Amino acid sequence: MRDVAIIGVGRTPVGEHWGSSLRMLAADAINEALKNAGLTQVDALYLGNAYGASVSSQTHLGALVADYAGLSGIEAYTCEAAEASGAAALRTAYMAVASGSVETALVVGVEKSTDTVGGARVMARNVSIDADFEAAQGATITALAAMLMRRYMHEYHVGLDVFEGFSINAHANGGRSEYAMFRNTIKPGRFAGAPLVSDPVNLFDSAPDADGAAALVITTAERAGDLVPQPIRIAASSAATDTLALHDRSDLLYLKGANLSAYKAYQQAAIQPSDIDLFELHDAFTILSTLTLEATGFAERGEGWKLAQSNAIGLAGDLPISTFGGLKSRGNPAGAAGVYQAVEACLQLRGEAGANQVANARIAMIQNLGGLGSTAITHVLKA
Amino acid sequence: MRDVAIIGVGRTPVGEHWGSSLRMLAADAINEALKNAGLTQVDALYLGNAYGASVSSQTHLGALVADYAGLSGIEAYTCEAAEASGAAALRTAYMAVASGSVETALVVGVEKSTDTVGGARVMARNVSIDADFEAAQGATITALAAMLMRRYMHEYHVGLDVFEGFSINAHANGGRSEYAMFRNTIKPGRFAGAPLVSDPVNLFDSAPDADGAAALVITTAERAGDLVPQPIRIAASSAATDTLALHDRSDLLYLKGANLSAYKAYQQAAIQPSDIDLFELHDAFTILSTLTLEATGFAERGEGWKLAQSNAIGLAGDLPISTFGGLKSRGNPAGAAGVYQAVEACLQLRGEAGANQVANARIAMIQNLGGLGSTAITHVLKA
Repeated sequence: MRDVAIIGVGRTPVGEHWGSSLRMLAADAINEALKNAGLTQVDALYLGNAYGASVSSQTHLGALVADYAGLSGIEAYTCEAAEASGAAALRTAYMAVASGSVETALVVGVEKSTDTVGGARVMARNVSIDADFEAAQGATITALAAMLMRRYMHEYHVGLDVFEGFSINAHANGGRSEYAMFRNTIKPGRFAGAPLVSDPVNLFDSAPDADGAAALVITTAERAGDLVPQPIRIAASSAATDTLALHDRSDLLYLKGANLSAYKAYQQAAIQPSDIDLFELHDAFTILSTLTLEATGFAERGEGWKLAQSNAIGLAGDLPISTFGGLKSRGNPAGAAGVYQAVEACLQLRGEAGANQVANARIAMIQNLGGLGSTAITHVLKA
Repeated sequence: MRDVAIIGVGRTPVGEHWGSSLRMLAADAINEALKNAGLTQVDALYLGNAYGASVSSQTHLGALVADYAGLSGIEAYTCEAAEASGAAALRTAYMAVASGSVETALVVGVEKSTDTVGGARVMARNVSIDADFEAAQGATITALAAMLMRRYMHEYHVGLDVFEGFSINAHANGGRSEYAMFRNTIKPGRFAGAPLVSDPVNLFDSAPDADGAAALVITTAERAGDLVPQPIRIAASSAATDTLALHDRSDLLYLKGANLSAYKAYQQAAIQPSDIDLFELHDAFTILSTLTLEATGFAERGEGWKLAQSNAIGLAGDLPISTFGGLKSRGNPAGAAGVYQAVEACLQLRGEAGANQVANARIAMIQNLGGLGSTAITHVLKA
């Protein structure tokens, strides 16, 4: 297996891009990433997208985006694992380059979800849960996250307020980034009283639907050193799954997929959780952040929220998370979220994170979840 | 790069499976492929599907199908390139095993498209053409194929009847297979007068929407030899694209993607077109068969239809195509079509094709197209 590195990054601001279509957003991120890598051509493009069919009546985005970005003819297709689609595209590109099938590849995650409102948006986003046994009964992904959170509060005897540190941290970091969608500060004590979305999940708890695109250029580690001063090596790439429907899980409060994929990554990268300098986790809901920290070896079961009570998850803490605002403040452009995580981790490892810089960051982990942990794809990046 | 081989195949009959959901069809094919390989577990599952979101309101099929097939926990995600999704999944599995990331992988293509009728079906299938500049103007993939066919007839001064050999051959072969959807014989001279779908494309010209699932088990060539008596080696895997919208093509009658991907495959497999014993091409419309043969080195431009006038494409011909009926007679379960092609090619190379056997088949090429050649993914298989 050939060693693989990231040599270019690009992204659009996250927000409501009503004036840009999927192809336009994707091309903006691609052009920036190619420029960042000093290249004008690649061999392949792997694209992450979750809601193209349901929001924009458009699939087949690989060929469409390759052509629109001026790369017509190259290999291109879409990778989809709901909200983990961006990481699935990165993993595919990693395997393409590692195998020798492809020398240089683009990864682009792109999503538009804000062109729909109300019930139409709920329907369009709800394709990632079990259509026959969850969505058909009226469940939504937010309602299911609320059930997880309620169960957690019941099992571990904690109130809603214990989760507030995750959102306070995300907004504190997002407030420093011009790419973030919601840069407002969340003041301590205000979290538990925010307007409800699906009890107990509230407005300060759940990441906003968003539009955006992010891109990476990757190639062999050998070639990377000749092309850019600071290639970022992909030290591990792994994926795992859990049941799609929550009712099929034997243990509702344990993210099996997140656990399996993280530990495969630790083994491949030959590291321990304690070696990780920052962790871009999938904070679509604070309950996901909590359960992720417990599943990936950073907290005991029932205690993930405690990391958010201390300064541990801040930029200067032991385990900085959501360093550019995470899904909560940067915004959640579903199929692009995993690529944003990778772009942000690369900027940290290059020392180019500006006001969001984690000091001496050498090893970053990123984990992108689909649904409520039904898919978990993990990458470890090294400076 | 590690050599890769196919060690198990499975498929459901192609047709209208109103009593089976996506997960049920996929699991049927998976179980048969695992049994065929003599395995009960794999490391990863790559799934091809084109219309899950638009027909069944279901994405995230990787995790869903892995769990339903009793493989919960393994790596799993979807690969999508419209009707070439099945081949995209095969290509991803190939790269996963070739890279060393994965030892044994399942490929499954699954589609349901017959649960919708009339306008709803047109809308659901139309997501693979350009939503903003084709579909929004009322175009459908069949109407666009009709434009291609009309242009071809005009440029090369041929009538509709010259294409009939493709459909006669497909139905002659499909009539011998219990897996085919339409097994009726098409009599010479009846083609040009069939009821029109989109002038000049008619009922005997276009492949039927269908439901079905097909699966492959693949592993390293080294391991394959220990597991099964007749592993089928993947000698080449390649992908290329063309514009999504027809109006963006500088040459309407030249399938650039099909050409690029086929010639990359010839190079990788170190073969010439004349070395190929059978070619499962993407015969969704006879104009696609014609243009494919011209783009891939089997016919001069303007002469692809001539191969269908002779016995060249029959089971005993120089270049057998659609040996189990192709998309036209076997049926076109979009995102599964490319995996059916691979299953059928493996059976030919194993000598297990029964009444459909091509004598002494040693090298097979399969090419799966998305849209009207916007994506082209080619594999060369060797006995």
